[in-house]
Amino acid sequence: MTLTQATSTKLTRDALAAMDAHDPLASFRDKFYVPEGVLYFDGNSLGAVPKTVEGRLQKAVTQEWGDGLVRSWNTAGWYEMPRRIGDKIARLIGANAGEVVVADSTSVNLFKVLAAAVKLNPSKHVIISEPDNFPTDLYMAQGLIQLLGSDHKLVLKPAAEVMDTIDDDTAIVMLTHVNYRTGAMHDMKAITAHAHEKGALVIWDLAHSAGAMPVDLNGANADFAIGCGYKYLNGGPGAPAFVYVAQRHQANFSQPLAGWMGHAQPFAFDWKYQPAEGIGRYLAGTQPVLSMIALECGVDVMSEADLSLVREKSLAMADLFIQLVEQRCGEYGLELVTPRDGAIRGSQVSYSHPQGFPIMQALIAAGVIGDYRKPNILRFGFTPLYVSYTDVWDTIEILSNILHDRTWEKPEFQRRGNVT
Amino acid sequence: MTLTQATSTKLTRDALAAMDAHDPLASFRDKFYVPEGVLYFDGNSLGAVPKTVEGRLQKAVTQEWGDGLVRSWNTAGWYEMPRRIGDKIARLIGANAGEVVVADSTSVNLFKVLAAAVKLNPSKHVIISEPDNFPTDLYMAQGLIQLLGSDHKLVLKPAAEVMDTIDDDTAIVMLTHVNYRTGAMHDMKAITAHAHEKGALVIWDLAHSAGAMPVDLNGANADFAIGCGYKYLNGGPGAPAFVYVAQRHQANFSQPLAGWMGHAQPFAFDWKYQPAEGIGRYLAGTQPVLSMIALECGVDVMSEADLSLVREKSLAMADLFIQLVEQRCGEYGLELVTPRDGAIRGSQVSYSHPQGFPIMQALIAAGVIGDYRKPNILRFGFTPLYVSYTDVWDTIEILSNILHDRTWEKPEFQRRGNVT
Repeated sequence: MTLTQATSTKLTRDALAAMDAHDPLASFRDKFYVPEGVLYFDGNSLGAVPKTVEGRLQKAVTQEWGDGLVRSWNTAGWYEMPRRIGDKIARLIGANAGEVVVADSTSVNLFKVLAAAVKLNPSKHVIISEPDNFPTDLYMAQGLIQLLGSDHKLVLKPAAEVMDTIDDDTAIVMLTHVNYRTGAMHDMKAITAHAHEKGALVIWDLAHSAGAMPVDLNGANADFAIGCGYKYLNGGPGAPAFVYVAQRHQANFSQPLAGWMGHAQPFAFDWKYQPAEGIGRYLAGTQPVLSMIALECGVDVMSEADLSLVREKSLAMADLFIQLVEQRCGEYGLELVTPRDGAIRGSQVSYSHPQGFPIMQALIAAGVIGDYRKPNILRFGFTPLYVSYTDVWDTIEILSNILHDRTWEKPEFQRRGNVT
Repeated sequence: MTLTQATSTKLTRDALAAMDAHDPLASFRDKFYVPEGVLYFDGNSLGAVPKTVEGRLQKAVTQEWGDGLVRSWNTAGWYEMPRRIGDKIARLIGANAGEVVVADSTSVNLFKVLAAAVKLNPSKHVIISEPDNFPTDLYMAQGLIQLLGSDHKLVLKPAAEVMDTIDDDTAIVMLTHVNYRTGAMHDMKAITAHAHEKGALVIWDLAHSAGAMPVDLNGANADFAIGCGYKYLNGGPGAPAFVYVAQRHQANFSQPLAGWMGHAQPFAFDWKYQPAEGIGRYLAGTQPVLSMIALECGVDVMSEADLSLVREKSLAMADLFIQLVEQRCGEYGLELVTPRDGAIRGSQVSYSHPQGFPIMQALIAAGVIGDYRKPNILRFGFTPLYVSYTDVWDTIEILSNILHDRTWEKPEFQRRGNVT
């Protein structure tokens, strides 16, 4: 049964179970470990663990690090990992081999490409972003501007106004493709084209799109992109991030975090920095190998999946979620924050509710893991490789009970920790 | 038997075995895994694996990431790791709690403190270092200067001339405490004091000293320091690095890699960067948790050791090594590059030899792992927690045979790979 058939009739758990039975991605669930009793809708914050990680890391510790010791930089391929995993990620985001490298954090990679874009577009001084872009992106831009002591200006406009704000003074447009709170998705191709017309460069943050849907950086004629390894790529907590630089920009600038791994010949130990040809110059220092190995496991699993099927199922699950909330939780004041139109939505559904925080705490206590984002946002991410249609059903069942019984009023759900 | 007793008589393997038998650090060897048949003298490049790592990482993957999922940022203490491990490292380098944080790579951390030092000493524009400082340090300074487009100048002087070069124009002295090639050690206290007299700030790179000997940053009135997790701290390949900022400097500058983890309230998701109080502002993005966990295992083992005993044994092993090379390999043209005086030497012994590269390849093939550094340097690092006096004896035995038999002439030892 397809979703269209399912939604034209009254939804039942059995109907969704039938959809699961025919899900072409169903076999992927067995490639991940999802704990018993957990309904996981936070893979957009930390992806679940691929089953290959445990054995792969054990091998890395005992054989590669343990037996191989320093020799493993050559013999176990550690040295090549940033480029090798970069090439694998490139295939997931519409980039060519040699346009992506894995290193550092998303924040640090943003600094590199921001510095590049600033220097490649020297006559203009306006950087456009959104006030509710993920904050670290805004912070990194502020940090760079403060360091430069230049008259660059960070101009923040709501998503709907971004296009009209781009003008001849715009040096850089810095946007997250899919908004972390609302799940709204920008039109990458249209914005990039418009920015280029105005002489601006564009930096896309793919934190909430890489691995969640087909992304076509080269099709959009993108300039720079960065993204995260630990969300939809299932690379593990704090996994190293990636950076994309369109080939046409690579030779024109040498980024300032000029560490030895970005040198043309790191082991020549020359005193003078000479950037590597190509994307390698976006490396800085030595990379955390164990975390890189876990990331590669996640990227490898994702590489086996057809991303158009992933996208299709993600949208279907989200549509279902929205529909079921309307049918079964309609009277409790949840307001849909995410666009209803799948074409402009990422892989999550967010609701605002005045009691958003305690409701999420009650959900988590009941085994439904989503997350809460200020102000009052309940966020549910969809990761089609290991979440099923019936998981959506069961989640709505629990959510409607919590709302009906006002479980969230319990004092233990009202307490806020440091990290939410 | 002490070393003095041993060296006053003719050295024998039995005499060294007796020293091992009385080694107060002997029990540490069992806390590390060193492969059968390997004599490891490259712990200054990649420390051996602490036996706790395998189980700890398995727990991190299956229980913390697997079962705990995103909740483990709170419940498994992931969020606190950069500060927690930083405080543990602080005790090893003469810093106070709250002066050290673990994050990113050594290169990236250097960028942060270089930027801080540049901005805190704005009227001066000379940065002094050595031409044979570890290249990534020089590269990062070049990258920062290029980015700033300022008239800062990187002045490189041989170690012996550094003191006399520091003058009223000096903004920053940037030195690696122990030179990676020669093993020569700077007088941290004297250089820092002289630089301060001249109005300069000092950045110490502790890559080859943290965990190798007692370091007293606060005793030297140090300003900034950075260091490496994967050498003497045994934190695993590419382990995250650390950064030290003296408390007196912390509130005066907010470093440019202003990621959300360095924000006063990361989970307030405010658009405006507000640096955390204290050392936390030297964090940037999300840290690679799995690699951090391995690092903590290494730091924990090192924290159990008395660093003055570590230093004592390191010097004794190196003295022995030098003495045995003289006695048994004297005629083969090995030239000692490292200072003979232990007081100005780190935890390694380096020799130059015209056939340095193939000799090291022959050693590695015979199970003695040291490393080669251009030009012609054979480098042997001493890691007293898992290397014994008899290991030194056995190494010299193998080395003298290779030199005597000219084993290094074999074609397979002449070939150079990309990574040496």
